[in-house]
Amino acid sequence: MARIIQKYGGSSVATLDLIKNVAKRAIAAKNEGHEVVVVLSAMKGETDRLIGLAKALHNSPSPREMDNLLATGEQTSVALFALACQALGEKVKSFCGWQAGIKTDEDHGRARITDINPSRLKTELAKGRIAVVAGFQGIDRLGDLTTLGRGGSDTTAVALAVALKADTCEIYTDVDGIYTTDPHVCDKARKMDRISYEEMLELASLGAKVMEIRSVELAMNYSVAIHVRHAHSLSSGTLICEEDADMEKTPVRGVTHSVNEARITLLKVPDQPGVAARILSLISKAGIVVDMIIQNKSVSHDSNGQETHLTDFSFTVPLVDYGKTMELMQATGQEIGAEKILGDDNIAKVSIVGVGMRNHAGVATLMFQALAKEGINLSMISTSEIKISCVIEKKYAELAVRALHDAFKLDQSA
Amino acid sequence: MARIIQKYGGSSVATLDLIKNVAKRAIAAKNEGHEVVVVLSAMKGETDRLIGLAKALHNSPSPREMDNLLATGEQTSVALFALACQALGEKVKSFCGWQAGIKTDEDHGRARITDINPSRLKTELAKGRIAVVAGFQGIDRLGDLTTLGRGGSDTTAVALAVALKADTCEIYTDVDGIYTTDPHVCDKARKMDRISYEEMLELASLGAKVMEIRSVELAMNYSVAIHVRHAHSLSSGTLICEEDADMEKTPVRGVTHSVNEARITLLKVPDQPGVAARILSLISKAGIVVDMIIQNKSVSHDSNGQETHLTDFSFTVPLVDYGKTMELMQATGQEIGAEKILGDDNIAKVSIVGVGMRNHAGVATLMFQALAKEGINLSMISTSEIKISCVIEKKYAELAVRALHDAFKLDQSA
Repeated sequence: MARIIQKYGGSSVATLDLIKNVAKRAIAAKNEGHEVVVVLSAMKGETDRLIGLAKALHNSPSPREMDNLLATGEQTSVALFALACQALGEKVKSFCGWQAGIKTDEDHGRARITDINPSRLKTELAKGRIAVVAGFQGIDRLGDLTTLGRGGSDTTAVALAVALKADTCEIYTDVDGIYTTDPHVCDKARKMDRISYEEMLELASLGAKVMEIRSVELAMNYSVAIHVRHAHSLSSGTLICEEDADMEKTPVRGVTHSVNEARITLLKVPDQPGVAARILSLISKAGIVVDMIIQNKSVSHDSNGQETHLTDFSFTVPLVDYGKTMELMQATGQEIGAEKILGDDNIAKVSIVGVGMRNHAGVATLMFQALAKEGINLSMISTSEIKISCVIEKKYAELAVRALHDAFKLDQSA
Repeated sequence: MARIIQKYGGSSVATLDLIKNVAKRAIAAKNEGHEVVVVLSAMKGETDRLIGLAKALHNSPSPREMDNLLATGEQTSVALFALACQALGEKVKSFCGWQAGIKTDEDHGRARITDINPSRLKTELAKGRIAVVAGFQGIDRLGDLTTLGRGGSDTTAVALAVALKADTCEIYTDVDGIYTTDPHVCDKARKMDRISYEEMLELASLGAKVMEIRSVELAMNYSVAIHVRHAHSLSSGTLICEEDADMEKTPVRGVTHSVNEARITLLKVPDQPGVAARILSLISKAGIVVDMIIQNKSVSHDSNGQETHLTDFSFTVPLVDYGKTMELMQATGQEIGAEKILGDDNIAKVSIVGVGMRNHAGVATLMFQALAKEGINLSMISTSEIKISCVIEKKYAELAVRALHDAFKLDQSA
């Protein structure tokens, strides 16, 4: 007997028929002798419907009231799911996040789980019931409802897996698993059987949408294996787990791209201590998250032959914050002494990821060569231990993905 | 400064525009210097929509899961109402029933409030906020969500008025107040300024739909005055309160009718001790509530001149239970010794109500004369201290209401 957490996303419970289908899947696991806890998202479209109602009343709705409103979405899902199970003769009880003992901080709309008291769920499991828990939500110390932000149901599932010492945490979604790259972009994309937490984190940060970063971090911290599977197929999915020797043999395991960023360059800023900090603190104060940062020194000489150290300072921000960031820079660029401020929202970021990169030389070279062969120019490069990202012209994004997928032979199983 | 409970029903919050309207109303009361607690029903149609989803999954859904599902309706209302208030610059917080401290027994779907801990609401009122509470719902000792049954939001409002020692409990609805009779049946129907708890209870029991019986009982037990008003008009409404001398001067204050009952008669049952009890216990065991009961003794003589005491035994049951009751009676009537079993689902009950009836003779006579004058036959009569009900042929129901309204001059203010 194993203890299993099964999380079904919004598209897997989008209709009553789909709810019936996934109810059967949970019951099948129970009938195999397992203890089953089901975590659900709101039915697809419901959260957006509720946000629409709120926005029609208030253009900047209070996060506390939004959480009260949005929490109804998952509550509806779990009650309907429980009824579907009961119609199939199964013993089951549904729970809101707070009833399942999920405590969070008070950061409405993006709360973090601080503690879980799973005693009620344990009682129900011991009675032979399936416990169905509303994902995405919890309760703060004031007794107010909170939500964990988009993708929060994954976090709920992993956190419950930790609290209940579950044997496995299954994340059911509308894709077969984690792919070497986006199959819509590259038809040679291959589903991976296993991927390490670190690789998944990089892929998720870099644009892969299957898993939320927070839930992967949580799983990594507590060594909970996440099994990503298709909700309505029996294919074997992808296991997100500790890295192993096989993974390390392969230098690159995934390619990802994002077109949701913009680049801003301050030309010829005086190269003095604290300039970069001044620029970046201004941006972070506005609540904008900077991704890549690059600084290039140059030296200029004035008519008297006086030497001045200058620097070109570039960074990327989310595309939605591009306009606001440009305004900020234009307002302060002069004060900082920048000669010119350039903006470019016509960029893409292409990245390769793999834990094996640590042990393989020449990965960057191969990447740059593959892109150069397609005539693709690199305007920024950023690296970490297990990834390399390049900023390129947006129109080349998909070509670059395919070129890198081929260059690193990702269509071939490791 | 007064402490005011305002309850708005589903039709008063049916759309976002209506929610904005009633939000303004609550804010107006606050701006007059009062402490305001708002209790809301689900948006009109929402509860039925949720019931429809549940029924599509399970033909007899578990009451516990239904409560989890239905509780989302009021939760949505209160969050949207709070956002509407905030858009108007008002300080406000919304609460689920359990957050407002409303504790109930475990009778899902028709739970009774057992206790209220209003400390959270008091805190918010003290901070100058409007507190918006989801009606119709609470929490049981297991921590499960419960609902109070249809009309439960009225009960929530009155119970909060008691717990918070409110000065007034305003029930906003889609009518102007309590009428002497149904204005759709009798165009001379007159809105009453005041009505006693007892009269309201009788009217509600007898078919008037404005107020739920339980909430009126609760208000009576704790002497909380209920002010029934139109949500979208400034008319003065009706006060439900202790009876006073003015009310007692008038023998009859309201006329009501119901066509939701059926009559069953067991002819010539042997008149032995315990027969009535046997018949009625059989019915109550089936969960059917008997309303009127009438027994008529007769004596028959057999061919040997032997005298037998017999009785005709009639009672009424809700129309929805008519078929089931007839089956029960047919299955056991013979055993009991009934000669014949008659059923009639073509009946109406017409009633007159008034606390003044206690002190006025001849009220029944005037009622029967008024009906006789219209050629209406009475098949059953039942009386209490402050009401007289008659069962008549269904087709005469509305005519009877108008005749009685005229006979007792209810169009004239007391």
